[in-house]
Formats: sequence, structure tokens, C-alpha cells
Amino acid sequence: MRATLKELAQIAQADIQGDPEYVIYGIAGLDKAQAGDICFLATSKFKQFLSASQAGVVILKPEDADEWSGNALLCQNPLVAYAKIANFLSQQLNKPTGIHSTAFVDESAEIDATAYISAMAVIEAQVKIAAGCFIGPGCVVSNGASIATNTYLHANVTIYPYCVVGQNVIIHSGTVIGSDGFGNANDNGVWIKIPQLGRVIIGDDVEIGANTAIDCGAMEDTIIGNGVKIDNLVHIAHNVQIGDHCAIAGCVGIAGSTTLGKHCSIGGVSGVADHIEIGDNIHFTGMAMVTRSISEPGLYSSGIPAESNRQWRRNVVRFRQLDVLEKRIKALESKLKQLEGS
Amino acid sequence: MRATLKELAQIAQADIQGDPEYVIYGIAGLDKAQAGDICFLATSKFKQFLSASQAGVVILKPEDADEWSGNALLCQNPLVAYAKIANFLSQQLNKPTGIHSTAFVDESAEIDATAYISAMAVIEAQVKIAAGCFIGPGCVVSNGASIATNTYLHANVTIYPYCVVGQNVIIHSGTVIGSDGFGNANDNGVWIKIPQLGRVIIGDDVEIGANTAIDCGAMEDTIIGNGVKIDNLVHIAHNVQIGDHCAIAGCVGIAGSTTLGKHCSIGGVSGVADHIEIGDNIHFTGMAMVTRSISEPGLYSSGIPAESNRQWRRNVVRFRQLDVLEKRIKALESKLKQLEGS
Amino acid sequence: MRATLKELAQIAQADIQGDPEYVIYGIAGLDKAQAGDICFLATSKFKQFLSASQAGVVILKPEDADEWSGNALLCQNPLVAYAKIANFLSQQLNKPTGIHSTAFVDESAEIDATAYISAMAVIEAQVKIAAGCFIGPGCVVSNGASIATNTYLHANVTIYPYCVVGQNVIIHSGTVIGSDGFGNANDNGVWIKIPQLGRVIIGDDVEIGANTAIDCGAMEDTIIGNGVKIDNLVHIAHNVQIGDHCAIAGCVGIAGSTTLGKHCSIGGVSGVADHIEIGDNIHFTGMAMVTRSISEPGLYSSGIPAESNRQWRRNVVRFRQLDVLEKRIKALESKLKQLEGS
Repeated sequence: MRATLKELAQIAQADIQGDPEYVIYGIAGLDKAQAGDICFLATSKFKQFLSASQAGVVILKPEDADEWSGNALLCQNPLVAYAKIANFLSQQLNKPTGIHSTAFVDESAEIDATAYISAMAVIEAQVKIAAGCFIGPGCVVSNGASIATNTYLHANVTIYPYCVVGQNVIIHSGTVIGSDGFGNANDNGVWIKIPQLGRVIIGDDVEIGANTAIDCGAMEDTIIGNGVKIDNLVHIAHNVQIGDHCAIAGCVGIAGSTTLGKHCSIGGVSGVADHIEIGDNIHFTGMAMVTRSISEPGLYSSGIPAESNRQWRRNVVRFRQLDVLEKRIKALESKLKQLEGS
Repeated sequence: MRATLKELAQIAQADIQGDPEYVIYGIAGLDKAQAGDICFLATSKFKQFLSASQAGVVILKPEDADEWSGNALLCQNPLVAYAKIANFLSQQLNKPTGIHSTAFVDESAEIDATAYISAMAVIEAQVKIAAGCFIGPGCVVSNGASIATNTYLHANVTIYPYCVVGQNVIIHSGTVIGSDGFGNANDNGVWIKIPQLGRVIIGDDVEIGANTAIDCGAMEDTIIGNGVKIDNLVHIAHNVQIGDHCAIAGCVGIAGSTTLGKHCSIGGVSGVADHIEIGDNIHFTGMAMVTRSISEPGLYSSGIPAESNRQWRRNVVRFRQLDVLEKRIKALESKLKQLEGS
Repeated sequence: MRATLKELAQIAQADIQGDPEYVIYGIAGLDKAQAGDICFLATSKFKQFLSASQAGVVILKPEDADEWSGNALLCQNPLVAYAKIANFLSQQLNKPTGIHSTAFVDESAEIDATAYISAMAVIEAQVKIAAGCFIGPGCVVSNGASIATNTYLHANVTIYPYCVVGQNVIIHSGTVIGSDGFGNANDNGVWIKIPQLGRVIIGDDVEIGANTAIDCGAMEDTIIGNGVKIDNLVHIAHNVQIGDHCAIAGCVGIAGSTTLGKHCSIGGVSGVADHIEIGDNIHFTGMAMVTRSISEPGLYSSGIPAESNRQWRRNVVRFRQLDVLEKRIKALESKLKQLEGS
């Protein structure tokens, strides 16, 4: 990693305070950063820590600049600027190219010369791996799958046959793309598998966490839009469509044929029912139970936060009596009416 | 893929409309199917799309047959017929046999000559792989495990020592069979592992999705019955027993020593408590919280579907006041009694 | 496995009844144990089964000893004693050492001569594997990671670069340690990845189940304390800190930067919000929704257990009317006051 303040200002579209030729070698937190390191001040709330920082450069809002006399990048969203800069600096790291001696690559696969296939990876027939890709150790890319430029598969990722992965995608370890959808027909009590013939199509600039699974479509394809970010241990069923720039947190399950619009977010450990349509700009807090289509943008929630076990036991009993409580209120209302009338 | 209409009619136990010698080469959806393709009409609701279809053959109910003049298979359950036909056609695909040059197979393992061991797979000592099995790339089948005929492990599946997998089983990538159960004894605040000495026994005709984990029993075995279908990211703890023909959707957790009867189903993101007994033909909707034994067949549910965050906040407050609300009703009732008495 | 009753008494700190030189060769349940086997009586409730047992040795409480005339170990907590003995006996099994011919080990890695690297495992540059470790088939230990003595990685585990794993740790198959945290900055609707630069640090005597994922920290480290036990399919986000001797059951998700104290436990399929602090000795029942910091030790719960679908539908409707119900009660109260006043 090595860049001048001037170069980084351009990447972050930020204004420079101090020496434009100052050289940055590393990234660190505000409290640990040393000379040569760049760090950022996420919110003004922490600006009292600026005076003690040893950082070479701080990214901050113009209104916080008077608290810091050293080199700085000034911009409205220091977190976004930091993200852009940190990505730029980490992309400078040397990437290997070629095929590790222990990998297996089918002779019909097309591997770009600038891609890298790691140890013990398996690349099956007719696979296409584009320029700048990194296929981690132990990954399996199955027959006919294609992976576009600069995509990075961490170790032990599995891509099923004929799936299509966009460019600048990152997929973390243990994740499975293209497993069969959960499609079964009930023949007098016995489940008969319905062959799953579709693919998974993943757009550009997508990131998918560890141990997530995205099923292929039954006949059509499962589609993950551009810029979608998916966390760990997420289950996306067959024929789901996720719109561009959605964010889905850990342990979420989305059932079959459901559609998410653009710019949605789903909090962790939520469940989304099958065959429903969620519009654009719809957000769910954690552990939401989403059972119906929603078109109105906004924030939606469900679930009762944990309370002491003693209190919870009482409230559960009352919940089960809600119907009875309502009847008691109704009885009171009618009696009162009688009394008033008398 | 290649079959005559006559052959497929026999497989699906359906009646023929049109030319019994018509040859089918492929499967497609009603809207995309061409000459030589077979497709199905799931429900009469879509029958207006029949007239525009180019399909070679349509599977439909006898009562919809008048809307379609082409070749057809007539039967009461087109989805089941389609599933049987699609399975038949996809089983015709050439299966490889033998051991890939990069796989490692212990010399004491018994691999049937008609099975296939893919690249980078590891087959440990005393393992038995029966006829027609496919062991995907990167799979690990550990010491003494046995896999019966025609079972298919997709890439990167792990089978722990001594587990037993039935015939015609499909296991998807990333799934782990036989990991240690979560058994710990508390010794004055310090957890001591209880060695898990049982196995996992999986019946015939089972399908297990991606990144699922089924723990071995503590001393006895964990048992998955015949015809059970398990989705992605499901956790099945030690000593669980799942009856024949159950279906368990994605992200479900079933805690230790719990028993499910036959023909049950569990909706996605549900949790089932430990040491309970669920009878036959019991079904749970998604996100169900199952805390007690149930013997009465039927449909069970829990959870409050998501609503607008504003409304939800209000209702959560009221939920926490349920006990107080009940007391207020009680006070009203007694006052009213006094008034009536006076 | 082979040990005298005297040796096992010392390991379990138990008193001997019978022959101290009696030799134990195996472990079994009370009902299946034969001569030479050791078993335990978990609770006095099962003591009527003692008379029929063929076990060579039974571990039981002193107060149950009069029901059993054979060899025995007497102690206050038979389960803990059993766990210690079973661990001792299973550790006697011969462990292999060395590097399997199909593994790939980078020449800069330091592998202790008493460690074992299994088939198809990948050990990258600068990795350190200490004495007595077992690295299972297909595992990937990435650049600069270190694994302390006697740690056991089952097949297909992935350790990301620079992660630190303590001694006597067990990690089950499919688990991923050190994947990137879910950190994204929103730049006018487009998510920009925030590079995740921290590590995962795992203490000693930790066990982690199958297909779990623990993310590295954004800038600091994610920390798992000593003696922590984590089940299958658990998601632990970036910068989480888990105190010593916590137990986390299957399918739990813990969001970013949350801290758990010591000796906590979390029931299965629970969700814990981000940036909260849970103190010591705090326990949650299954499917708990933990949304706020808690410092008071105790048992906490949430969720409404499943009931018949019919009843549930009615109660959900009432839940949505809670606000209205409260208003009806308030109206009754004020009318009644009027009546009383009149």
C-alpha cells in the first residue's frame, strides 16, 4: 500500500488540508493510527479524541476540521470516503496469476491468463473464468459456469453448473451458489423431487458472506441484482429475485419465487414468505416475519423483544387469552350501556 | 434426453392424447417450450396460455384437455406426472464411472466399479460406496462411513466417520452429516465436552439441501427416515429422529432428542425445542416456535407478521402491558358488579 | 481405549466401589453396556434400570449406590465425571502425525512434527500449526494464521488469513473463521464495501459446531473467549466479543460489535442486535429476540409458542387491535367514573 494524499483525495472526491504530497502507507483506527496511516472520524461525537491521535491523515467533515491541525481529507461522508480509499489501497496488493500446481482445471475450461486458480480448486468442463479473477483454495466451479472479471471467490466456495457470476463480485467461504431448489410434488404422501433446471444469475458488485446458499430456479433463473450485499448464513430459495442494491443481513431465509425491489434491506434472522412481492425502498428490522406483499416504502417490524422470563411467562398467558379479554371488554361495554340506559 | 410419448405415459401413469410415437427431447416452461419439449399446466388457472404455447407435449388434467389440440398426457396431478417424467429424463444423462486422478481413496475403501469419485474428493479407510453413486469434487467421506446405491453427493459435502447414508439420496454442497452434538456438562461454570459416540443414519430417497448440518447422536444414533426432504441451512441436533416423508424448509433448527412423526412439515426459520415428541401429520407454518409435544394432527402456527414500524412499536408496548390491561378489566368488572348490586 | 477403575477414579475425582484394578475397554449406555464397559446414571430417576444393567462399571451418586452391587465410581455429578472419563478414553486413540501426500503445505509454514495435515488440506504461507494439532481433509488454513497445540479441525474447515486459534479447540466441518464482516457504507443508494482489516481470535478449550461463520473485525478483532461452546449454523458478526464459558446454541445470529459477558447462554434460533452489551450470567431461552443491553443476571425470553393455526389467527388479529382494546378499556373506565360520580 502506498499513495499520496493528492491521489486519495481524488479517489474520495475530498478536499485536502495540509501537504498533498504526504505519503500514506497504511490504514488504522483513530486511536492506533501512526505517522503514515490514514483513519477517519465517523461522527462528530468522537471529535474529542482527535487531539490525542497520532494519525498521518484523518478523513473528517469540514465542520470538524478546526479540531485537527494535521493532514486531512474533508468531505461530507467520511465513512464513504474511507471505504473508497481502503478499497483502493487494498487493491494495490499484488495479485497472483496462473494455476496452482495442485488445482485441477478441465482442458475445456477457459481461464484468463490474469486470473488465479488456487490450490486444490476444481474447475470443470466449459467453465469460463475472466481476467483478474481469484478462485480460492478448494473452490469448485462446475460445468459451464462463468465468472466475470475481477471476481474473488474465497476458499471452499461451490458454484453449481451453468451459474453466471458478474464482475467485481466477492463470495466468502463455504457459500453455495446454484443448489437445487426445494421443489417436491406430493404423490399420496410421498414427496417426488421436481428437477430444478434453472440457474443462479448474480449481477456485478455483489458481495455474499460465508456459508450462505442460493438455490437455482426450478425452470427460470434465480436472480441477484447489481450491488446487492448478502451476509452470512442466508438462504435464498429458488426463483427469488433480489433487486439492485439490496442488503440482507445474517441468518435470513427468503422463500421461493419471492421478489424484492431495489434498495431494500432485511435485518438478521428474518423470514420472508414465498410468492410475495416486496417493492422498492422497503426495510425490515431484525427477526421480522414477512408474510404478505408490501408496496409502500418504509420500515416494517415484528417480534416481541426479550424480557425477564417471569414477565414473559405472564404475558404469553395473557396473549393466549386475548380473545377472552376482548369478550370481557365487550360484556362490560354492553352492561355499561344498559346501566347508562336505565 | 430422448423418450417417446408412450414411454412417458407409462412412467407418469397418464393417458395419451395425440401421437404415442412422438419423441420428446427436452423440458421447458409452457411459455418457452418448443417442438420436442414437454411441459405441464400446473393449475387450470393458467389454461388461457395454452393456445399460445409451442410445446411438443403438455401434461394436463382431463378437464383442461379441450383447450389444447396438440399432443398431451392427461392425468389428475400434472405436477406429480411432470416430476416423474423430468426425473426419468434427467437420469438418462450419461453418468461417469471410476475414480478421478486427483481424488484420494484409501486402499481399504470399497468403491463399486459403477460409482464415480470426483476430483479432490477424499475417501477414507473402510468406507463403502455402492453402485451408481456419485461423490462430488472436494467431498470427504470419513472412516467407516457407508453410502448405498445411486446416492449423489454434490461438491464439498462432508460425511463423518461411520455414518450410514441410504440409497437414492441426494445431498447438496456444504452439508455436513455426523458432526458432534452440542453436548456439554457444566462443571462449576466450565463446560466439559461430552464425547458424541453415535452416528447419523439416513434412510432411502432422502434429499438434503446446501449447508445443512445433522449431528451424530450422543450415544444412540440420529435418524432421518425414508423419503424425508430437508432444505438448506437446517440444523438437526443429536439424537433427533425424523419420521418418513417429512419436509423441513430452510433455516429450521431442531434441538436435541426431539422426535418427529411421519408426514410432518415445518415451515422455514422455525425452531423446535429439545426432548419433545411431535406426532404424525403435524404441520407448522414458517417461523413457528415449537416448545411442547403435540400429538393431534393439524396445522400449528406462531409469530406476529410484520407491520409498519410505528404500529409495531405501539403494539409491543401494549403487549408488555397485557398483564396490567387484564387487571384494569378485572377492576372494571368488580366495580360494575358493585354498581349493578347497588 | 484401556484404563483401570483406579485411573478413571483419579480423572473423575470419584470414589471407588469394587475392584480398583478392574479394566475398562469401552463406553456405552446403561442398557447396552457389557462387561468392560463404563456407563453413568444421569439422574436418580432412572435407578430402577440399574438392576438389569450388564455394565462393568457405573458412575453414580453416593445416594444411588445401594441399588448397584457391581463396580462403581461415586461422585456428586456423574455427567461431569462421565464427560471427563470419556474424553480421557477417546484421547488415548492413536493420533497420526505428519503430512498426507496429497496435502499442500507452503514451504514457509511451520508445522510441528507431532501435528497431522490430512489429505487435500491447504496450508498457506507463514501459517503456524502447533504440536498435536489435527487438520482435517480439505481444510484451508490461510496466510499467517496460527493454531495452538492439540487443536482439531474436522474436514473442510476454512481459516482466513492471520486468524489465531487457541489450544484444545475443536472446529467442526464447514465452519468458516474470519470471513469479512458485513460492513458497507451507503453512497447515495449504492453500497460501498468497507474493507475488514481485523482478525478473529479464538481462546483455548473452545468448540465450534458445523457450518458456523465467525467474521473478522472491521479494524479491531472479533474475540471468542476461553471455554466458549458454539453450536452449528451460528453467525457471529464483526467485532463481537464473547466472554469465557458462554454456550451458544444452533442457528443463533449475533450482530456486529455486541459484547457477551462470561457464563452466558443463548438458546437456539435467537437473534441478538448489534452494538449492545450483555453482562455476565445472562441466559436466553430459544428464539429470543434480544434488542437491548442487559446487565442484570437472569433468564430472559421472548416469542409466543405455536398453537393451532385457527387459534393463532384469532390472537394475531387481537394483537393488532391491542391499541384499540386499550382505548376501549380507557373509555369504560371514564364512563364508569362518571356513573359512580353521578
